[in-house]
Amino acid sequence: MSDMNRQWLLRSRPTGMVTEENFERTETPIPTPDLSAGEALVKTLVLGFDASQRVWMEAEDSYMPAVELGDVMRATGVGQVVSSENPDLPVGTLVQGLVGWQEYCIASPTSPFPFNVLPPGTPPNLALSVFGVTSLTGYFGMLNVGELKEGDTVLVSGAAGATGSVAAQVARIKGCKVVGIAGGRDKCQWLLDECKLDAAIDYKSENLDERLAELFPEGINLFFDNVGGDMLETAIAHMAMHGRIVLCGAIASYNDSEARPGPRNINRLIMQRIKMQGFIVIDYLEHAPTAMADLADWVMSGQMAWQEDLQAGFDAIPATLQRLYAGQNQGKQLLQLAEPT
Amino acid sequence: MSDMNRQWLLRSRPTGMVTEENFERTETPIPTPDLSAGEALVKTLVLGFDASQRVWMEAEDSYMPAVELGDVMRATGVGQVVSSENPDLPVGTLVQGLVGWQEYCIASPTSPFPFNVLPPGTPPNLALSVFGVTSLTGYFGMLNVGELKEGDTVLVSGAAGATGSVAAQVARIKGCKVVGIAGGRDKCQWLLDECKLDAAIDYKSENLDERLAELFPEGINLFFDNVGGDMLETAIAHMAMHGRIVLCGAIASYNDSEARPGPRNINRLIMQRIKMQGFIVIDYLEHAPTAMADLADWVMSGQMAWQEDLQAGFDAIPATLQRLYAGQNQGKQLLQLAEPT
Repeated sequence: MSDMNRQWLLRSRPTGMVTEENFERTETPIPTPDLSAGEALVKTLVLGFDASQRVWMEAEDSYMPAVELGDVMRATGVGQVVSSENPDLPVGTLVQGLVGWQEYCIASPTSPFPFNVLPPGTPPNLALSVFGVTSLTGYFGMLNVGELKEGDTVLVSGAAGATGSVAAQVARIKGCKVVGIAGGRDKCQWLLDECKLDAAIDYKSENLDERLAELFPEGINLFFDNVGGDMLETAIAHMAMHGRIVLCGAIASYNDSEARPGPRNINRLIMQRIKMQGFIVIDYLEHAPTAMADLADWVMSGQMAWQEDLQAGFDAIPATLQRLYAGQNQGKQLLQLAEPT
Repeated sequence: MSDMNRQWLLRSRPTGMVTEENFERTETPIPTPDLSAGEALVKTLVLGFDASQRVWMEAEDSYMPAVELGDVMRATGVGQVVSSENPDLPVGTLVQGLVGWQEYCIASPTSPFPFNVLPPGTPPNLALSVFGVTSLTGYFGMLNVGELKEGDTVLVSGAAGATGSVAAQVARIKGCKVVGIAGGRDKCQWLLDECKLDAAIDYKSENLDERLAELFPEGINLFFDNVGGDMLETAIAHMAMHGRIVLCGAIASYNDSEARPGPRNINRLIMQRIKMQGFIVIDYLEHAPTAMADLADWVMSGQMAWQEDLQAGFDAIPATLQRLYAGQNQGKQLLQLAEPT
């Protein structure tokens, strides 16, 4: 391996849409000589991209501390141990964790976010896509937060995304009528053909309000929202009595330069006795083994479809993040940096 | 008694603030000769006023059907049976129900909202104030919807109102730190002196944001909101992780001519994993006996304070409703039409 570790640092905080200018490309020596007892040097193989990375770039802490200016941009990924002072992480081990936008990082036993060893035989990509945190988010959001019941009428926004597609399919597998919202004909076709949803709405070419009226004559029992903004307001107008809204994400507003007004129909939450609840997947990770077992079962038996959008190359990292906010990704956004040995 | 029944009809639907012009004063013959088997003629003694009456005046049905143009304005009240074809409602009985803005009404056994007989000895005013539906709203909203826990830090808006004062005192009785928001020094003093809250914020003269920062350094666990609008947005900014927001009412916006933007910080519901839930008291009325027993206990033992704002006279009815939206009422807004015999 080369002696240098290429990195993308956070140079500035975005005021609106995140741009490549917010990052700075740099190189530092690979930190091998500094390995302490318990540490391992990890080479990044694949990076995962999440809408919440834009949230971490804000000055204010969110559910995670803000990324400091000058620090390596935070990111999930899968890597391989290439040097080790930790007997639990021998050379060659595949691990998953917050590798960051860099070619090498150190897995430290004292990190607040320790690395996990991949179950033997797990392809790195799958560990980040259908068996990744985004899938767990869809699973827990639907079942634990949304309290999904058989027979519910369910709407999912961002339904062709990594989280939304799992949320929607969990609801379909549990015997619900499920409608997905996505942007573009290809995504909608995938929702119908592969995810087997009851209907798909292309918000770019269809009138969401009219379609919801048509598809949910009795109202929506459960809305799983990844988008926020106007879509949330429109969905609130179609919620059934005692409906539940799971606020998973708000990709529509993450890149706003100033906070936009919220839904004008908040009072409908009172009249219709609606529960709207935000959540973060990290609160549910203690139940991850059960969720992973279910997901593995559904994937292996062909009940659950997934998609990966694999980009490549160190230089393409910032542009790949932008793909999420432009809705260009077809499924879980990944980027490959290296092959496992 | 005179032969005529004075009534206020709904003449037009308000486009902004409700005004006296929205109502029409009329007189019709008292409907005594028309009494059928099971019916009773009820003379109105006291009317109760509720912020939600403005909601019932809209064209669109809410949790109750819209009041039709030309119909008697819907209102709760206590009346006395003055003529009866119902052996369960002998002459002299005090009853509570949707009497409407009129001097006489018929208690029909087939009404979707049947009248209740007051427990013997209950003063009519108290049946509408501290033992009324507004109190049940505060009780159920805090305990059943808000899932109040001992030690919670609690904020109540509209805290000097009929619902808010009960909600706040239930939380205080259950061992919570409670802060009330009200408009004006007198209301705030009453919250401190009589309701024994930990603090009161006069939103008319104090900076709500600063006071919340000072009073809730660790954030708000439970916010019981009667007001909505900007106050909701400000409170969301101070919610603690996993906080709960009970949406009971939104008096700030009931008289808006067009829907106002919602809170700009909805995304904080995600980051802080906040649950925001609307409710209507009628969903909990099966538990009313338990609630009434608790309320009676607290009132009799001096643990729960209440206030009534008693107006008088048939002509003053529309103006008395307006007092609610102007925040002029000191406690439960009532109006006396007649004394019991």
